[in-house]
Amino acid sequence: MSVEIDLSTFIRPIQDFPKPGILFRDITPLLSSPAAFTVAVQRLAEPLRDLQIDVLVAAEARGFIFAAPMAIALGVPFVPVRKPGKLPFETLSLEYQLEYGTDCLEMHIDAVTHGQRVVVVDDLLATGGTVEACCQLLERCQAEVVGCSFCIELQGLGGRQRLQKYPVHSLLQY
Amino acid sequence: MSVEIDLSTFIRPIQDFPKPGILFRDITPLLSSPAAFTVAVQRLAEPLRDLQIDVLVAAEARGFIFAAPMAIALGVPFVPVRKPGKLPFETLSLEYQLEYGTDCLEMHIDAVTHGQRVVVVDDLLATGGTVEACCQLLERCQAEVVGCSFCIELQGLGGRQRLQKYPVHSLLQY
Repeated sequence: MSVEIDLSTFIRPIQDFPKPGILFRDITPLLSSPAAFTVAVQRLAEPLRDLQIDVLVAAEARGFIFAAPMAIALGVPFVPVRKPGKLPFETLSLEYQLEYGTDCLEMHIDAVTHGQRVVVVDDLLATGGTVEACCQLLERCQAEVVGCSFCIELQGLGGRQRLQKYPVHSLLQY
Repeated sequence: MSVEIDLSTFIRPIQDFPKPGILFRDITPLLSSPAAFTVAVQRLAEPLRDLQIDVLVAAEARGFIFAAPMAIALGVPFVPVRKPGKLPFETLSLEYQLEYGTDCLEMHIDAVTHGQRVVVVDDLLATGGTVEACCQLLERCQAEVVGCSFCIELQGLGGRQRLQKYPVHSLLQY
C-alpha cells in the first residue's frame, strides 16, 4: 500500500504565509500521518543507497525532521548545522545573504572530515540559500557534497540553479 | 551487540558552555554514531509501546532529532512545537518564564484533539520549562500527557519535580 501513497495530498497550502502573496506548503499534515511520513523518509533515503554516503547533514529546524530518520534508515552519521551559539564545541561558521540582510550557520569542526561523501537534507528547496551555505561549510572541510535532498521543491525560485554543482532530488515539485 | 552499547560514552562534556561554570552535555557524538543513535531512539521508544499513545510532540530544534525517528518507529503522528511565527496554520501559543525573561511556543490548533494520549520528547531535561510549556499547550487542547521522554536528564535542576504530574523517562542521568 505504501508505494501508492500520494504524498502531495498530505501537504497543506496556506495562503499569505509568512507574508501576503506567498503560498506556503505546510508539511505538518504529512508529519501527522505515520504512513505518509514513513514513506516520505523511505523515498528520500532510497536514491541515496547507491551513493556510498558517509554523512547526512541538515540545518535546523525542519531539516532535522527528515534527516534524523533518514540517517537511521541509511545507517550513516547525522550532523546538525545550527544557528550561531547553539553548538557547544569548536565551530566553523558561514554568513550568507538572505533577501534582506544576512544569516549565519555553524557546524562543528569535527563533524566531517576530508573526502567524506555527504548529502544535505532539507524539507524545502526555495532559493537554496540555506543548503548552499551548508554545502560551502562542508567544502571548507574538504568533504564532497554528493547530493541535496528535499521533500518539497518550489520551482521558479532558482534553488536548483543555485545548487547546480550538486545532484538535487526532491519528492514533490510545485 | 546493540543492547550492550553504553550511550554515555557518546555524550561529550563541554566545560563553560553556554556560559562559565556550566558543563554542557553534547549529543553530537551520539548523532554521529549510527549504532548509538539507533539504539537511543529504540530505548526511548520501547517504554512507550505499552502506553497506547496517539501522538508524539517535540519542541524545536533538538527535540525533533529524537522525536521524528521515534514517531516513525512507533507509527504515531509527530507534532512539532515551534517558536512564534514559524507555524503557518492557526496556532495556540503560550508564554513561559525563563531564568531571565520569557519565551514563547506555538502549536497548530489541529495538532491534537480532545482525549488523545500524548508523549512529549526532548533531548535534555534541565529545568523542564520548555517541556512543561508543551504539556500546558497540549492540555489546553484537552489532550492527555501520558509521559515525557528525554535522552539526557540533568538531575538537581528541578526538572523532574516541575514535571511531577507526568511520568518522566530518561536514558542518561547526570
